[in-house]
Amino acid sequence: MAESWSFLDTVESNFRPLVVIELAKGTKEETIEWFTKRIVDKKADGGAQLLIKPLVTENGHENIYLVGASHLRLLLGAETVGLVKECSDNSMRTFTYSSRKTFKDFADDNHNFLTMAECQYIIKHELDNLRAKNEKMIPGYPQAKLYPGKSIVRRLLTSGILVQIFPLHDREELKKLRHSWYGRVRVGYQPLDDIRCYFGETIALYFGFLEYFTFALIPMAVIGIPYYVFAWEDYDKYVMFATFNLLWSTVILEVWKRICAILTYRWGTLLMKRQFEEPRPGFHGVLGINPVTGREEPVYSSIKRQLRIYLVSLPFVCLCLYFSLYVMMIYFDLEQWALDYHKENESNFSSLMLYVPSIIYAVVIEIMNRIYRYAAEFLTSWENHRLESSYQNHLILKVLVFNFLNCFASLFYIAFVLFDMKLLRQSLATLLITSQILNQFAESLLPYWLQKRHSKRMKQRSCSQKTDKDLSLAEQVNMEKEMGTYLGTFDDYLELFLQFGYVSLFSCVYPLAAVFAVLNNITEIYSDALKMCRVYKRPFAEPTANIGVWQLAFETMSVISVVTNCMLIGMSPQVDALFPDSKMDLVLTVAFVEHLLLAIKFIMAFVIPDKPRDIQVKLAKLEFESLEALKQQ
Amino acid sequence: MAESWSFLDTVESNFRPLVVIELAKGTKEETIEWFTKRIVDKKADGGAQLLIKPLVTENGHENIYLVGASHLRLLLGAETVGLVKECSDNSMRTFTYSSRKTFKDFADDNHNFLTMAECQYIIKHELDNLRAKNEKMIPGYPQAKLYPGKSIVRRLLTSGILVQIFPLHDREELKKLRHSWYGRVRVGYQPLDDIRCYFGETIALYFGFLEYFTFALIPMAVIGIPYYVFAWEDYDKYVMFATFNLLWSTVILEVWKRICAILTYRWGTLLMKRQFEEPRPGFHGVLGINPVTGREEPVYSSIKRQLRIYLVSLPFVCLCLYFSLYVMMIYFDLEQWALDYHKENESNFSSLMLYVPSIIYAVVIEIMNRIYRYAAEFLTSWENHRLESSYQNHLILKVLVFNFLNCFASLFYIAFVLFDMKLLRQSLATLLITSQILNQFAESLLPYWLQKRHSKRMKQRSCSQKTDKDLSLAEQVNMEKEMGTYLGTFDDYLELFLQFGYVSLFSCVYPLAAVFAVLNNITEIYSDALKMCRVYKRPFAEPTANIGVWQLAFETMSVISVVTNCMLIGMSPQVDALFPDSKMDLVLTVAFVEHLLLAIKFIMAFVIPDKPRDIQVKLAKLEFESLEALKQQ
Repeated sequence: MAESWSFLDTVESNFRPLVVIELAKGTKEETIEWFTKRIVDKKADGGAQLLIKPLVTENGHENIYLVGASHLRLLLGAETVGLVKECSDNSMRTFTYSSRKTFKDFADDNHNFLTMAECQYIIKHELDNLRAKNEKMIPGYPQAKLYPGKSIVRRLLTSGILVQIFPLHDREELKKLRHSWYGRVRVGYQPLDDIRCYFGETIALYFGFLEYFTFALIPMAVIGIPYYVFAWEDYDKYVMFATFNLLWSTVILEVWKRICAILTYRWGTLLMKRQFEEPRPGFHGVLGINPVTGREEPVYSSIKRQLRIYLVSLPFVCLCLYFSLYVMMIYFDLEQWALDYHKENESNFSSLMLYVPSIIYAVVIEIMNRIYRYAAEFLTSWENHRLESSYQNHLILKVLVFNFLNCFASLFYIAFVLFDMKLLRQSLATLLITSQILNQFAESLLPYWLQKRHSKRMKQRSCSQKTDKDLSLAEQVNMEKEMGTYLGTFDDYLELFLQFGYVSLFSCVYPLAAVFAVLNNITEIYSDALKMCRVYKRPFAEPTANIGVWQLAFETMSVISVVTNCMLIGMSPQVDALFPDSKMDLVLTVAFVEHLLLAIKFIMAFVIPDKPRDIQVKLAKLEFESLEALKQQ
Repeated sequence: MAESWSFLDTVESNFRPLVVIELAKGTKEETIEWFTKRIVDKKADGGAQLLIKPLVTENGHENIYLVGASHLRLLLGAETVGLVKECSDNSMRTFTYSSRKTFKDFADDNHNFLTMAECQYIIKHELDNLRAKNEKMIPGYPQAKLYPGKSIVRRLLTSGILVQIFPLHDREELKKLRHSWYGRVRVGYQPLDDIRCYFGETIALYFGFLEYFTFALIPMAVIGIPYYVFAWEDYDKYVMFATFNLLWSTVILEVWKRICAILTYRWGTLLMKRQFEEPRPGFHGVLGINPVTGREEPVYSSIKRQLRIYLVSLPFVCLCLYFSLYVMMIYFDLEQWALDYHKENESNFSSLMLYVPSIIYAVVIEIMNRIYRYAAEFLTSWENHRLESSYQNHLILKVLVFNFLNCFASLFYIAFVLFDMKLLRQSLATLLITSQILNQFAESLLPYWLQKRHSKRMKQRSCSQKTDKDLSLAEQVNMEKEMGTYLGTFDDYLELFLQFGYVSLFSCVYPLAAVFAVLNNITEIYSDALKMCRVYKRPFAEPTANIGVWQLAFETMSVISVVTNCMLIGMSPQVDALFPDSKMDLVLTVAFVEHLLLAIKFIMAFVIPDKPRDIQVKLAKLEFESLEALKQQ
């Protein structure tokens, strides 16, 4: 590879802006000079060897820079990040510059060999890996310390000199994507491959999962409708429905793993080697030697972190859970009080009072969710995780547990303490439908409207009546930099997770839940697509091979739902009537059936292979080839 | 590596016999000549480039050959099989001939760099990988077909020309090992590293597990003794004991994974790359193209195999399980009949009759176990698995399920149908103790005695009064080839698995079970050691990184034991007395506790890392280095 780098000495003429860097207003000249020099410097001199150009607008120079790279530089970068592309013989292989001719669609003048999202990912990777050499600090900012090997961009970000880095939208491509994605009403699959090319694998996989999940819910919805319409309340029909649901939810989660493997194999991320993960930006510690890399970097004792997790975070989370339950009990007390009050007084005011507890509770839950989210983020950040991935996992776990309790505790209470199936059905329907409507509104339509108003005002200010297409680069950058930042798929998955809970936990009480879930998800696909294309800045692509911790979360939910459904069926009067003599036999039978279902679930999860056979063969083939190559050496 | 092979052209003079090949009596001369030539041939000509010498005894030539290899050949072989050895800087690395100088204890004249077991493993690997070139059949045996790439040794074995291949014992080393292992009575650990050097990783890991498991049972045994001695039957003490047992059994299985990682890291097998697995000897099919290797080899449709598994094997196993339950019911009927008969007649004869059902049942169980084992082996072989590992897994699963039912069905019946805790305790004690005594006898002492008698007769026949040490090579080979073949660790693990069942499934009824298990395992270590060193042929070393499917089997058992123990506690009169008003509350409480314990179990299994931190760091370091090396390329 060493020789290839020297080709780069000749500067390419056509500059295609890919990534925008916004520095703080009033950043010192010497800092800017040093930073841009480091970006342009040759790889051999420790630079990133990228191209950079200041953005000149009508208002003059605004500390905004456009970063690009020559085609050759991007190809070499693709090798560095370990991109996997399709070869001419349809197999997927790790791209190397020396073997470039064997790849499908490769030609020295084909600048579309790498997708724009891939190019932007490569540039981000190169910028993140631009490391301090002998600098002790960022020139001009003595308080922003550096040490050899420290990522310069991360230090600039943490010290506030660098405001943001984001990839540019490609107006042409975006328009095409919008059209094929949600531009026309049609029945069919989403253009997942195009989404992946434009937004990267993490987002494409979320939409893939959303679509798959919606299709998977359809059988449940179809079977659920007659139960609702004909009010089939015979125990045997209910048992059948619940059993079908439980087994079906296991099957869909297992089959998703296979589909996920097919998608990520095609996208190359299934084969992509895990890169060595750098410390996350917020990580701090005493300078020491990393035992893995042998490099100097901040080190933080893992025992201290464990202590923080188990002695502070865990008790705090438990306390919050307890508090949330306490609030719920107050709500039920209030509800009871309002009911009593209404019975005593029977006035217009008292009937209005009936709604007050629910409204208060809904508002309180929302407030608690928000406060807790901040607390969870603060705590997880204070736990000082070295890796972004482990930070994310701990945060997700904390938020998940709390949200689960907040959403479902009242339902559990109604079902298993009050034994009020009618109220359960009613609460479930209310919660499911209102949360879906609120979510759709708060998540996509509201930001879209705000964004639209904002961009309209922007246009008016620049006194032009141009359409999107005619926007100059400077105008485009200025508009995009004001757009909100998409914070990742967390909230989207969380919404689906809670929906899955509503559908599966009490499925035998409210078979119509799946119908609403399907309807919601169809609009969700459109509103999420709108959100990605219209509301937010373009996010950097993140290669990923699976949906990570969410797979586990969904599987856990489906195990819990076996328990709850068995309990509900056991409590139904129809089943009760089957055991007139002995309640004991009833409970034992239900417990037996529950254990049997759980056993079947685990056996099914074990028996269904996680990857389809042809993917297994392809992976085995690659492994065999690399073993053979080693032998030949 | 290519150049290194050429060093081998010069023949080394000192021949150290490592492996014995026994051909059938009357094997044609042309076959022998062809086979030995292929073994000696240079690697470049498709041979194995090993050394071979016929064994000449007093009776002349007996179709027995000794195989060895030059030191250099073994080093090159070590690279081929991907051996991992310790470097001078204490890290473990894959051995390559070119980097040999960086390894600890390496010197060109140090012939102990590779252990004898490693050398024998290398030779076995090279012999197995001796492949047909253009031969259409084995010369002299037109019915023994060959095709390019077919392993010659496997074809010779399946066509009966090759009787056996086994590695030679090293009398000196074996004596040392025997002395340090079981030669003196002492308290302390087994010399696992020495066992591993002599017998390889699979067997050393079995003994490591046996020892670890024995130590892990000691706390259970210690806590169990006062329960037995003071007859503590208060529910609270029992509940505490059972809870401790359940959590403890989870902890020990999780900790074992960590210890296993420590051991196999030290032995290098944790890092060893999985070799491409060849089809097992019994595998047959139509000649086709293997999609993974692209080579011509027998191919068998995986759908056909699935059909055989699910449509024939699965129903057959279920039928056997049903039959076994049926036999058990007959036993209980007989028992009842004998009891009634005794009550009516009250004679000596009738009291003798009381024992008859148990004896008949024990004999029938033993017969069923044996017949089933043959059937399972036949069926699994008929399923035509391509890989030895998947054959083994399917066989283990079949045998495990049947043995589990055979051993524990009567206990389950007594506990949960007859509700007779006294009988349960009595049966448990009888079954545990008799099975332990019988096993020790049948497995080690009997074969040892037979072997001793046989070798004495052999010695008498050769009219010599020599001790073991003075035996000539020819006598040693002749003696060893008559010894039994060790069929792998399957039966040893199965014994431990059933023991674990006796200890954990009904632990709250019979706390003394752990005491007996500990006592048994201490003698088991000695008798198994005796068996390995004295009774059987030396087995080939098998590199392995864990105990494989047995980890899963033990974990499943510990999940089942949570269920059984909770049920037993719920049924105890002491707990019963706590809920005088409502049996319902009792059952619900028990079910709740059970689910809580299961949840704790899964969370613990999830939270405890499978590898200790320092091993994780070492593995990460190696991964990081290989990534860096790739970048440098």
